[in-house]
Amino acid sequence: MVSASEPLDLQVCDAFHRAIELIGRRWSGAIISVMFKGADRFCQLREAIPGISDRLLTERLKELEDEGIVLRDVVPTRPPQVSYRLTEKGLALAPVLDSVAAWAHDWPAKG
Amino acid sequence: MVSASEPLDLQVCDAFHRAIELIGRRWSGAIISVMFKGADRFCQLREAIPGISDRLLTERLKELEDEGIVLRDVVPTRPPQVSYRLTEKGLALAPVLDSVAAWAHDWPAKG
Repeated sequence: MVSASEPLDLQVCDAFHRAIELIGRRWSGAIISVMFKGADRFCQLREAIPGISDRLLTERLKELEDEGIVLRDVVPTRPPQVSYRLTEKGLALAPVLDSVAAWAHDWPAKG
Repeated sequence: MVSASEPLDLQVCDAFHRAIELIGRRWSGAIISVMFKGADRFCQLREAIPGISDRLLTERLKELEDEGIVLRDVVPTRPPQVSYRLTEKGLALAPVLDSVAAWAHDWPAKG
């Protein structure tokens, strides 16, 4: 039995909490979004996201790789050709990005 | 005509970028999520989100108020009764939260 002082059913879901902060972390959502639009080179990603630094873009791409959302492909030419693509897990974020875009469109930011 | 060096169509959408980082900011998604579950008092919110401090919960609720996502109701009794609820704009986030929860469920975090 759950007493009124222990509203266990209100607890935030860990998996949800982790996911929303992973996707919503500064720059990460933007990176995923422009990859959906077709950006696959480091310089394309940087140009598509005003304000991001090389350091932060590198850091975020590494995090997204570690999470299994982004895959880094290296073609061993000279110089090596590096490109990035969304994994199946990354591509599965399409409905999330669509719903955020719809909300942002329906409810413009204040001020 | 857009040249290959100016991939303007790849640019991240400002409204999307702002929205994903607003919702995904540390603790904000969790707060909105437990409000959907029915938490409406400060102490309920704090108990539903392990790890959040009073200061951060206060700060995030104020931000969500400023964004028009949360409304703070005060009943002028002694002591005043304060409660929080989602606005229409906040309730419109339901599809976003559902899609994040579905993705988090389908693709459990690594490690």
